[in-house]
Amino acid sequence: MVIMGLDPGVATVGFGIIRSENGSQSVINYGAITTPAHHPLAERLEMIYNDCNKLIEAFSPDAIAIEELFFNTNITTGIAVAHGRGILLLCGKVHGVPLFEYTPLQVKQSVVGYGRAEKRQVMDMVQRLLRLDKIPRPDDAADALAIALCHARSANSLLYKDWGTKECSTT
Amino acid sequence: MVIMGLDPGVATVGFGIIRSENGSQSVINYGAITTPAHHPLAERLEMIYNDCNKLIEAFSPDAIAIEELFFNTNITTGIAVAHGRGILLLCGKVHGVPLFEYTPLQVKQSVVGYGRAEKRQVMDMVQRLLRLDKIPRPDDAADALAIALCHARSANSLLYKDWGTKECSTT
Repeated sequence: MVIMGLDPGVATVGFGIIRSENGSQSVINYGAITTPAHHPLAERLEMIYNDCNKLIEAFSPDAIAIEELFFNTNITTGIAVAHGRGILLLCGKVHGVPLFEYTPLQVKQSVVGYGRAEKRQVMDMVQRLLRLDKIPRPDDAADALAIALCHARSANSLLYKDWGTKECSTT
Repeated sequence: MVIMGLDPGVATVGFGIIRSENGSQSVINYGAITTPAHHPLAERLEMIYNDCNKLIEAFSPDAIAIEELFFNTNITTGIAVAHGRGILLLCGKVHGVPLFEYTPLQVKQSVVGYGRAEKRQVMDMVQRLLRLDKIPRPDDAADALAIALCHARSANSLLYKDWGTKECSTT
């Protein structure tokens, strides 16, 4: 199956597209949708909408895994990111692609095996699990690949546990 | 000009459509887009997207006025509402309708003449300014009409002050 991981944002939306077969994952593509600063928010959201739709149409993912928002610091950033995340969810829904959300803790637990892992450890494991020459750049793309890996690895272990496959809800 | 006011949300999006001519405003239509609880967020966002697009196509507004998010209480609600607000901004952008945002304080200042006015005073003024038999229901629709009125009255006084017409930005 093809899994598209998304790391939501407004300035930068990371994406990572992987193939998961027989318990092994390989990279198909990754990168970031970026929008120019100081442009009206609506314009930037439209850019994200158009680009994300193009990605879905180009790679036909069987599932989209997206990071759950978790804010305890900057509410202003959180509100902006949530605007962008709404657009990504809409893109998935419009194309009929099943959406799954994971917390940062779930992603770390799944990729590194330790929920409090450092960012660097996550990056290293993304490189290793996908057999890449180097750590993917930008960071948002590596984060998106980690989210896609989390879904692949959670889906694989579905027979044993179901914590990792909560479908998007309105919590 | 036709102005569409929007009170963002996920469970309920209030809308109020008014005509503003020669310094006087009259109501064209108002109501609320509602989405069912306990459905996946992406599904509810798609409903909002479809319904808001239909409204824009039916009433061809010259401007959309939308409430700015202001949260000091419930971050979880704020994040959900921001998802929905992103969808509304996208709808406006996709249809090429200019978008304007106003804080609750600006709306109260413009409609009641007092930024700390009570909700009831805003409702009363909406009824009076639009010459309605009763206060519009639901509250979200009345709020949306107040936002539309705020834009109409700010645009009228544009020659004298510009505080009320900030185009949507990412702050």
